[in-house]
Amino acid sequence: MLIRAFVPAHITAFFVPRFHDDPLKAGSLGAGVNLSNGTNVFLSVETGTLERHIHVAFNGEPVKKDEAVISHSVAEELVPMDFTGRVEIWQYFDFPNGYGFGNSAGGALGTALALSYRFGGTYLRAAQIAHKHEVLNKGGLGDIVGQLAGGIEIRVKAGGPGIGVVDNLFFEDCRVLVVPLGRLSTKEVLDGDVIRAIEVEGSKALERLLADPRPERMMVLAREFAERTGLLSGELLELAKQIDNVLSSPSSMIMLGKGLFALVRPKEIEIVREVVTDLEVPFDIVEVFRGRPEVGRWVG
Amino acid sequence: MLIRAFVPAHITAFFVPRFHDDPLKAGSLGAGVNLSNGTNVFLSVETGTLERHIHVAFNGEPVKKDEAVISHSVAEELVPMDFTGRVEIWQYFDFPNGYGFGNSAGGALGTALALSYRFGGTYLRAAQIAHKHEVLNKGGLGDIVGQLAGGIEIRVKAGGPGIGVVDNLFFEDCRVLVVPLGRLSTKEVLDGDVIRAIEVEGSKALERLLADPRPERMMVLAREFAERTGLLSGELLELAKQIDNVLSSPSSMIMLGKGLFALVRPKEIEIVREVVTDLEVPFDIVEVFRGRPEVGRWVG
Repeated sequence: MLIRAFVPAHITAFFVPRFHDDPLKAGSLGAGVNLSNGTNVFLSVETGTLERHIHVAFNGEPVKKDEAVISHSVAEELVPMDFTGRVEIWQYFDFPNGYGFGNSAGGALGTALALSYRFGGTYLRAAQIAHKHEVLNKGGLGDIVGQLAGGIEIRVKAGGPGIGVVDNLFFEDCRVLVVPLGRLSTKEVLDGDVIRAIEVEGSKALERLLADPRPERMMVLAREFAERTGLLSGELLELAKQIDNVLSSPSSMIMLGKGLFALVRPKEIEIVREVVTDLEVPFDIVEVFRGRPEVGRWVG
Repeated sequence: MLIRAFVPAHITAFFVPRFHDDPLKAGSLGAGVNLSNGTNVFLSVETGTLERHIHVAFNGEPVKKDEAVISHSVAEELVPMDFTGRVEIWQYFDFPNGYGFGNSAGGALGTALALSYRFGGTYLRAAQIAHKHEVLNKGGLGDIVGQLAGGIEIRVKAGGPGIGVVDNLFFEDCRVLVVPLGRLSTKEVLDGDVIRAIEVEGSKALERLLADPRPERMMVLAREFAERTGLLSGELLELAKQIDNVLSSPSSMIMLGKGLFALVRPKEIEIVREVVTDLEVPFDIVEVFRGRPEVGRWVG
């Protein structure tokens, strides 16, 4: 039996990290968007071996344990200690790792959901285990609760699943332009000097968004956050400005990756596609994912 | 512009009421199932009148204010006081009112989502307003958070949206048989002597379900709850036993309505259909609704 879990990619628009010794109480405030593309996790379990084996693969390539620490930590917790057999966790990412699409959280949550579905457990407990290992290994703070909420989300109370509180914005039909250009280490940014500016600007953005909770407003606030924290500057900022020329809401920076995203109205799709094609940057235009992360038997 | 909201019907399997002076902290513990049928709310707003008019209709029939107290309370809070125009809230219920399908919560939540979508607000705030008026008017305690969770849900911490915590059970492909036979007043049951038994048996059922969180187990525990509280007895219990003959999991009583429900595996659908047809009772076999309550522009 093959089990499949899908977790949407999650882009953070702006955020305020909230650290805590208890990983379930650690999290973030902020806002973000879930995408119809993301992470697919396929779980295959075979019994009949003499030992308990856990294997992880990214995009079809087996990876060593120390290259998939979060997934292995999740699996260690969810595969019963007395299980003998071969557990294979195949993770496929629609977006590149480290570019700010929540792949780490997607892999952790997809793995936790698939393993819980197979070995027993509940949805919330699986999500809590995924969040815990994300936080402990500095994979991220708010992606998992953001992914669980779906749509365009606002994290109004920080914390993991069952503790944090996430709201949703209503939105008209829109697509999301993504321009993924490279990696940014979440860990380095969170350990650096910029953290103070992130806290100040992120809190301000959240307060303002809650006073006028619309997606267009979120993009304006995200852009202000990105520029005022100094995270968005130089060539990336110039690129953002060129994209802005044809959109009704400003583009902003993917938190945290070297990349941009923007909300695109149906009538703006063609023109923005022309612009980014001319700019010769990689891009995709995807749907907002309104559902919740899914798990079930895979009948391919 | 017509706006449509859909909220799944919600059947409670077992519950423990948790009263509180703050309606957002009031709620219930327990478990339940969301159905693919439920409540559709269509909102039509016309400006140009001189006053602020709010009208509610159930299944196409306009109803007086005192017959739709919850919907009117929600609307009073969400339609701006200085709005002049005609607000029409058309609620359509797939199941009869008062039979335990969460119609009251569906109407309240659908109304709150549609009005917030039109006049501004967020998803969570809309849900909190709906929950508040449900509780204040004794419409129900746990339906709205159950409906927000989708699927087969377990209310593990009581409270309204953003305060209560709801988990989900994983489940294989299954349908839900419903046999709606009549009304039971939630208010009368909650005010009666049975409340103590409900609290004891409901708490026990929840604890046991969390120790072995599977839908089949939920049905066993729901049935024990229904019989031990004395809510399920007499003819209804005899009917349940006849349905049980062809199912792998026991049927149980809809909380709170005079009716039964059961989880049906794909291979059991035909035989159970024959049995309830022979019994000459009204029935339906529907899907579990996995999504979340939806709202958006209606393009009919």
